[in-house]
Amino acid sequence: MWSIAPDARLLDLSHSVRKYAIRDGALLLSRMVGYLPVGVHVAVVDPGVGTARRPIAIRAARGDRLVGPDNGLLLPAVRVLGGVAAAHEITATELFLPRVSSTFHGRDIFSPVAAHLANGLPIERVGPAIDPADLVDLRFPEPELRDGGLDTSVLFIDSYGNCRLAGQPEDLERIARGPVVPGTSFRVDSGSATPGGLAVEWHPTFGDVAAGEPLLYEDADYGGLGIAVNQASAAERFGLEIDSPVRIEAART
Amino acid sequence: MWSIAPDARLLDLSHSVRKYAIRDGALLLSRMVGYLPVGVHVAVVDPGVGTARRPIAIRAARGDRLVGPDNGLLLPAVRVLGGVAAAHEITATELFLPRVSSTFHGRDIFSPVAAHLANGLPIERVGPAIDPADLVDLRFPEPELRDGGLDTSVLFIDSYGNCRLAGQPEDLERIARGPVVPGTSFRVDSGSATPGGLAVEWHPTFGDVAAGEPLLYEDADYGGLGIAVNQASAAERFGLEIDSPVRIEAART
Amino acid sequence: MWSIAPDARLLDLSHSVRKYAIRDGALLLSRMVGYLPVGVHVAVVDPGVGTARRPIAIRAARGDRLVGPDNGLLLPAVRVLGGVAAAHEITATELFLPRVSSTFHGRDIFSPVAAHLANGLPIERVGPAIDPADLVDLRFPEPELRDGGLDTSVLFIDSYGNCRLAGQPEDLERIARGPVVPGTSFRVDSGSATPGGLAVEWHPTFGDVAAGEPLLYEDADYGGLGIAVNQASAAERFGLEIDSPVRIEAART
Repeated sequence: MWSIAPDARLLDLSHSVRKYAIRDGALLLSRMVGYLPVGVHVAVVDPGVGTARRPIAIRAARGDRLVGPDNGLLLPAVRVLGGVAAAHEITATELFLPRVSSTFHGRDIFSPVAAHLANGLPIERVGPAIDPADLVDLRFPEPELRDGGLDTSVLFIDSYGNCRLAGQPEDLERIARGPVVPGTSFRVDSGSATPGGLAVEWHPTFGDVAAGEPLLYEDADYGGLGIAVNQASAAERFGLEIDSPVRIEAART
Repeated sequence: MWSIAPDARLLDLSHSVRKYAIRDGALLLSRMVGYLPVGVHVAVVDPGVGTARRPIAIRAARGDRLVGPDNGLLLPAVRVLGGVAAAHEITATELFLPRVSSTFHGRDIFSPVAAHLANGLPIERVGPAIDPADLVDLRFPEPELRDGGLDTSVLFIDSYGNCRLAGQPEDLERIARGPVVPGTSFRVDSGSATPGGLAVEWHPTFGDVAAGEPLLYEDADYGGLGIAVNQASAAERFGLEIDSPVRIEAART
Repeated sequence: MWSIAPDARLLDLSHSVRKYAIRDGALLLSRMVGYLPVGVHVAVVDPGVGTARRPIAIRAARGDRLVGPDNGLLLPAVRVLGGVAAAHEITATELFLPRVSSTFHGRDIFSPVAAHLANGLPIERVGPAIDPADLVDLRFPEPELRDGGLDTSVLFIDSYGNCRLAGQPEDLERIARGPVVPGTSFRVDSGSATPGGLAVEWHPTFGDVAAGEPLLYEDADYGGLGIAVNQASAAERFGLEIDSPVRIEAART
């Protein structure tokens, strides 16, 4: 990129998205872009590239340009930035590296195109417009209120084993028999790892519970309902993997 | 930070401090800052943030400003930079991100405050002064001379399994029966992994011993006495963890 | 480096080369430098430093300067950049950090010397010229055509378990009974993990085979013949380690 845009400032957001986990990458990117100045953002999750996915460039309402594969990776971030102002398929081979490999589009297509956009190239120049409705989108699981409890599932597990669950803290208010305040107790059932369910309190921060104790909290990194264990792994304690179902009920009193 | 200080140059020192290991972070930061130009340094070790720790900013005698939690993480680095010239609790919420989460102060408080300081904001503007004597400090283990040997312990283990021990190379001179030169032999006893103790020579560099052989040496990364195994892990060989006791005696002759 | 060359732009190419794997580092660097603008490149693989290796600086024909140990790490990259224009042993201690450790030459010698070169210091100033023929070089394994098949071996294994093999895609044409096109089948024998050999097709991209299926392909990252398994590890499937022998024959028809 510096060969094309020598004055560009480069920032590595993350190189640690799980392999093949497009949804993880989309979630991470969407949580980060709002904290960045307007710029050009490149994203790719291996090895979806190299298949028939179209390379695309999107201009968001905020003014950012996003470059990557048309597999849903970019759209959640674009929504954070105000939605799609323009979407284009990348076909202008004169913007690519001279030799384009079959498997490394991040290097050979996305990065040079992003550098040209950083130089001020109008997005129309990368290729023909796409109807935003035709962009591939991802579906994130949504929680469901059923029999007075919340049926949710694991959206993301971070390196601590903290689990981001589908839904928002407000969803807990719908199942609590009263307001949700620090110490409000719920019963969390994640199957065989929690026979009969485990009592878990709502708290704002990890430090509000003893080391080794679980809590429901608002995940500041990923922006929604989370479950964690202070200084240990909620994924291990509750036997959770990505998409594991989790049922949350108000504590029996 | 670029949203607040667009011309700031950012350098990631490390993202690989062990989780919850404040002392590791303090050691690493203190070993690094002396090699950096005067600047603004942000440090945080998860997940101590989000508890009742005060956010603080310190101006060091050299002119650097350090931003982070008041849990001892910053003070060893500040000492390397000449000591505390001024310390302030961070209370000026107008410098924070508009929405402050309970658990991610690195993003919501420390980073924006650091960016404002990089812009030239006087440190007095972040909040009220703190008496440096009231700052939380860390205690690092010190070695002890006992019965002619050195009772030390493991301060830090790097990714190679090299172990930084409490104390300095000079401490070995106090137990050697003569000057410590390349090849001077010691007996290292780390408990059940080394029945009767293992003979280990002092050498300046790993390459001075055969692959697989141990050595005592001066740890260039962490600035003190170290024990390593050339191209293997001293932690494994000697059965060492953080704070494991290690006794070093002069070799029997 | 910023203390010496405050306007230098720094780019971390990689901190994840396997420990002690000089050949991995040389391969990675040689594959990357061609994509970078002309600049100063520092490379070191721990812990070969600190032994008797000379520190060297090389000016490549393209104009880049490379700084590191004289152990073969730099030469493959220099060849990509047009070959050695000048080679110098680094002896000018006034360019080093004031205190040079025995084991951390990357910090104490290579980085400051590189920063001085980035400032425009003529390479002659780092120390006496070396005859390029006297530089330590690495030998990479070469494949061999034998009995109508290709005897090759594993050069490198990436974090996906994709294996870069000695040789180029063109070598397959020499053993195929016809042109190599997508779907052309070969028999790959890697010993006990593949009794009788496994049928593996040539394909341009991972997405051309089903998840879990192997393919021979052109490795875009490392520039040669590769073997992979779509969304799984070829190293595991074929029981491969660095330097494992692999025999490839045309498929029996």
